[in-house]
Amino acid sequence: MNKHHLLLRGFSSLSSSLCRRSGPPHLPARPLFPPSRATVLNFFSPHHHHHHHQSYHSPPSPYPLPTAKMSTSTTTTSPANLIEQSKRLAAFQSVTSHLVPFPNYTRIGIGSGSTVIYVVEAISSLLLPSTLSAMTFYPTGAQSEQLIEAAGLNLQYINKLPPGALLDVCFDGADEVDPALNLIKGGGACLWQEKIVVTSSKKFVCVADFRKISKGLGTSWTKGIPIEVLPLAANRVLGELKRMGSLEPRVRPGLPGKAGAVVTDNGMWIIDAPFKPLRVHGESDREGGEWQVDELAEELIRIPGVAEIGLFYGRDGVQQPEGGAQKPVEAYFGMEDGSVKVLSA
Amino acid sequence: MNKHHLLLRGFSSLSSSLCRRSGPPHLPARPLFPPSRATVLNFFSPHHHHHHHQSYHSPPSPYPLPTAKMSTSTTTTSPANLIEQSKRLAAFQSVTSHLVPFPNYTRIGIGSGSTVIYVVEAISSLLLPSTLSAMTFYPTGAQSEQLIEAAGLNLQYINKLPPGALLDVCFDGADEVDPALNLIKGGGACLWQEKIVVTSSKKFVCVADFRKISKGLGTSWTKGIPIEVLPLAANRVLGELKRMGSLEPRVRPGLPGKAGAVVTDNGMWIIDAPFKPLRVHGESDREGGEWQVDELAEELIRIPGVAEIGLFYGRDGVQQPEGGAQKPVEAYFGMEDGSVKVLSA
Amino acid sequence: MNKHHLLLRGFSSLSSSLCRRSGPPHLPARPLFPPSRATVLNFFSPHHHHHHHQSYHSPPSPYPLPTAKMSTSTTTTSPANLIEQSKRLAAFQSVTSHLVPFPNYTRIGIGSGSTVIYVVEAISSLLLPSTLSAMTFYPTGAQSEQLIEAAGLNLQYINKLPPGALLDVCFDGADEVDPALNLIKGGGACLWQEKIVVTSSKKFVCVADFRKISKGLGTSWTKGIPIEVLPLAANRVLGELKRMGSLEPRVRPGLPGKAGAVVTDNGMWIIDAPFKPLRVHGESDREGGEWQVDELAEELIRIPGVAEIGLFYGRDGVQQPEGGAQKPVEAYFGMEDGSVKVLSA
Amino acid sequence: MNKHHLLLRGFSSLSSSLCRRSGPPHLPARPLFPPSRATVLNFFSPHHHHHHHQSYHSPPSPYPLPTAKMSTSTTTTSPANLIEQSKRLAAFQSVTSHLVPFPNYTRIGIGSGSTVIYVVEAISSLLLPSTLSAMTFYPTGAQSEQLIEAAGLNLQYINKLPPGALLDVCFDGADEVDPALNLIKGGGACLWQEKIVVTSSKKFVCVADFRKISKGLGTSWTKGIPIEVLPLAANRVLGELKRMGSLEPRVRPGLPGKAGAVVTDNGMWIIDAPFKPLRVHGESDREGGEWQVDELAEELIRIPGVAEIGLFYGRDGVQQPEGGAQKPVEAYFGMEDGSVKVLSA
Repeated sequence: MNKHHLLLRGFSSLSSSLCRRSGPPHLPARPLFPPSRATVLNFFSPHHHHHHHQSYHSPPSPYPLPTAKMSTSTTTTSPANLIEQSKRLAAFQSVTSHLVPFPNYTRIGIGSGSTVIYVVEAISSLLLPSTLSAMTFYPTGAQSEQLIEAAGLNLQYINKLPPGALLDVCFDGADEVDPALNLIKGGGACLWQEKIVVTSSKKFVCVADFRKISKGLGTSWTKGIPIEVLPLAANRVLGELKRMGSLEPRVRPGLPGKAGAVVTDNGMWIIDAPFKPLRVHGESDREGGEWQVDELAEELIRIPGVAEIGLFYGRDGVQQPEGGAQKPVEAYFGMEDGSVKVLSA
Repeated sequence: MNKHHLLLRGFSSLSSSLCRRSGPPHLPARPLFPPSRATVLNFFSPHHHHHHHQSYHSPPSPYPLPTAKMSTSTTTTSPANLIEQSKRLAAFQSVTSHLVPFPNYTRIGIGSGSTVIYVVEAISSLLLPSTLSAMTFYPTGAQSEQLIEAAGLNLQYINKLPPGALLDVCFDGADEVDPALNLIKGGGACLWQEKIVVTSSKKFVCVADFRKISKGLGTSWTKGIPIEVLPLAANRVLGELKRMGSLEPRVRPGLPGKAGAVVTDNGMWIIDAPFKPLRVHGESDREGGEWQVDELAEELIRIPGVAEIGLFYGRDGVQQPEGGAQKPVEAYFGMEDGSVKVLSA
Repeated sequence: MNKHHLLLRGFSSLSSSLCRRSGPPHLPARPLFPPSRATVLNFFSPHHHHHHHQSYHSPPSPYPLPTAKMSTSTTTTSPANLIEQSKRLAAFQSVTSHLVPFPNYTRIGIGSGSTVIYVVEAISSLLLPSTLSAMTFYPTGAQSEQLIEAAGLNLQYINKLPPGALLDVCFDGADEVDPALNLIKGGGACLWQEKIVVTSSKKFVCVADFRKISKGLGTSWTKGIPIEVLPLAANRVLGELKRMGSLEPRVRPGLPGKAGAVVTDNGMWIIDAPFKPLRVHGESDREGGEWQVDELAEELIRIPGVAEIGLFYGRDGVQQPEGGAQKPVEAYFGMEDGSVKVLSA
Repeated sequence: MNKHHLLLRGFSSLSSSLCRRSGPPHLPARPLFPPSRATVLNFFSPHHHHHHHQSYHSPPSPYPLPTAKMSTSTTTTSPANLIEQSKRLAAFQSVTSHLVPFPNYTRIGIGSGSTVIYVVEAISSLLLPSTLSAMTFYPTGAQSEQLIEAAGLNLQYINKLPPGALLDVCFDGADEVDPALNLIKGGGACLWQEKIVVTSSKKFVCVADFRKISKGLGTSWTKGIPIEVLPLAANRVLGELKRMGSLEPRVRPGLPGKAGAVVTDNGMWIIDAPFKPLRVHGESDREGGEWQVDELAEELIRIPGVAEIGLFYGRDGVQQPEGGAQKPVEAYFGMEDGSVKVLSA
């Protein structure tokens, strides 16, 4: 048994206690780790390339993936387990591609979501302790803060990032991802912090599960684009959204925990604004209420009273290396069949 | 058909549109209004006096209660309808006793809760338009603000009450009521505003349904006493609460609308602190973790980091006519059997 | 003595008591009102048209201006009095042009600043009580709320404006005004609310004194463009601002009343970002750090972490009658020599 | 030259750059450090014991105080320098007594104020690096956070203190100190955080200058007791304060940086409530508006709408070792004559 396995075993108990604290997915008790060889093979299998028409690739893995030993167990894996395994594999893949080869990275952003849990596990597993001790991790909110602390990683807050400095990479989830890697985020009402962490990064890597894959934003995430607004401007923004073609935008209610509106950690409200599925390319049909992502985003962000929007759009960190990009350079999805799908810019 | 019925009919449509907006109870489409004579008779029936050992009375009604015409329908009234009818009757009774006889009242507090909806209906129905036009209504939060506006009543905010002035009466709900009229409030995370409105009133009248009646606070409302805290003091307060015997106090989560903690309209968090059912009288057994209401409240309110607590205790407006009292002078409950129970100080 | 004089006399005492409350300018005890005919003549005098090269006009006044009786006193007026008189005259002119002719207006925005005090006086003086009683006034903040209440006008909050509705006109001040009517606002840290009220109006009328007139924003207001930011993004925004050429942008300190940063009514911080004086026309020299107003504004508003900016730019209510415009259609300035200067779009 | 001097020299440049950042006192460039032997002797001189009738002592110093070398310079020291030197000496004395002898302390609270700057310098100077590296420092706000970071000490936030845990000691300033070590704090609007940090400590040590010494709170600090309130309850609290005898309590204004009220870091307002100087002992004369400290504090803290008060009263950490005490166990003052006065519980 090598060092990695020892590390992983240590993390395993941490991870499960943490999940009890923050409540997200019910992880299979065992064999949580490592995923089966079968899964990995699937990922590299030819048919995988057929049933998706987006570009993806199998990133080079300088470090051995945690695979091997439990391949026999997959035949009896339940669908839920299969998905968890693929999410975990996606997380390991993303870290293998975007962090492991760069031990000189010092500042890493950590977002939220059920797949990001495995990102933190992967970071703890795949990097040497000496490398980890030179890295600092910046959370997007309370959940990722807990993840970072539970894994014993160095924590720092984004407000401490010196003016002009950038994170080297940020791993975060999404509520929906279109083929051009535009995102909807904000289901957890943390979109403003998330956008600040993401745009403070040289590159953003998205990790999620297959349910977030979409042909056009608004297809699978039908609750609406989350928009963080100043409470006294909520009516004004609702009026603008309707004028722009949003179908029944509404202030997100706080029940059952709170009567009235959800209040964000920034003291704002969230408006969920459903639109017809957004066009990835081309131009908007504004009369018909069919918007192209970038054009809609540019209109929304200018509405007075809007603090931030849940659309992550425009350019990615490759196209805009000086920082400020909103789109991920790659998105890793745990698939229903246990495989990993990678979407690249 | 007299003036009251016209008023009531007008309110009826208002009320239902309002309920669609703010979402609370699913009112029976009709015959919602007026309640049956049978129900009213029930209220005055002898057996009603037997199965409760608290004091109550039938307040004198200078105005005719909206009764009569639909008495035949009650025989087929469903249990849910019966409860709604008794809640509505409780609301009408409370207004008949505490507002109708005092047309010179000018400032009325309006709280929240499913029974308060009927209080606003009763106010609109039982008072003359000329009387209403001289009254101003002060909400405790967004829900009651909508109720006031939908009923076309004069709205004003509690921050506009001049220093030293008092509301004449305040009608509000509760999450639990003990025999001494101590209350738990804060299930909707609005306890701080509610306590300010209540303690700005010369008298407080509680309206609720039978599920809120309790022999000791913490018996039926088992989620814990809601405590509004400064977020950075949450851990400190949790530690104090445990030391005082609270069983698993925890920060109220914001899901599904918000990841992390509920944030109140005041930018605070809510800690729900379960204690063993509180003693109404006598002294606390602090070692055993069995607290008397007043003693617990006095301890809780002093913890640094606590902004306000969801216990309404101490004295009522009769005992403390100069304002600042927290306990209601009376509590009106809609009962399961269609009757109204009144608890007096 | 006609009705107007009675109204004015009534307002006069109100106005001075109000000024004691909210503290701003020390008004000359008398003869504060009415301004002299000489002043008015000055406004229409030919030389007035010579020493400014911006376009302006003398708006038609269907109502007689309050002038006449004290023309003899002006010869002995102190410079400070002269300025107050010209500010007051500017306010009366703005109301005469933009409210008096439109008695069917129902929703009026009221901003803040020492000249706006006279706008409220003018509204109370020049409009019939029956007209006023049908109008509702929407403040941009605490100061204008007090002004509206002290004048006995109908008060309503901007969050109550129904979705899709607009104010008919809004009167507000500015910290600096360039020849194209671009503005800097935010010296009082209320820029977010002010922008929401202004852009909720069909037209915006600016009233100020001569010190606010500028050839390029940043010439007279040298403290920097006020930018309202999420506190945790302050460093990030500071870094972006420096990259864009801002000279020593900094978080506005709260002293003497508060250690650390000013916190706005929205829970945000203010960054004051000095730039070289902004170009009114043409293109930016980004390398040289010389920005054109619109181009700078469009860059600033997109920085994640920026809630709102103190630049009011782009189009005005004539160019964009459907609402949302930021620039005033006209600006009225009380001049040093007692005259009024009007800048039109 | 020994290690301490090297450390001190290192801190010296840090300290001055920090002061430029956070702006407080203009420190004399040199010879700031070390203070003269004359000063120290003064502290122990007999006349010092005569003109104060409070108890104080010269705490045992197991470590050599930084004295000696510059005694000749004191003859030419300006009064301002003399005060700075005595404040610095007071800080060194407090650290010598309450931190140096306890190298096993792990959690230290750091407050704000011009004397606390020297506390951080003393900590950096007097403790061994290996001891310091095992200590974590908890700030009360932005200023002390900068101090901790600039000194290269381990920073942690009070919200991270585990439930039930306590800081070992906290050093903080005060706006006024009475003979029983009751305090007024809150001039910088940070009183809520400060009270949480102080009451999370096993013992609290106050450091300040002679201007804070008072025979009764309200004697030298005449602006009023700072009270942090929920904005919508401000009028209500003002009314209560007047009823209790406060003379012209008022909401603290935010000018020049912000129109309207100061908003605290917690989203609250501050009311400054002047009372007649508070009695240290005995009972209140409520009719006459002369309050005893504890009795006033207990009344104030119960007013609904009051989040926290700027009175630190009751017991100290010796009397209440389980945590939660508000009063310091000792207060160290830099005196006008260059000496240090110590007040003990």
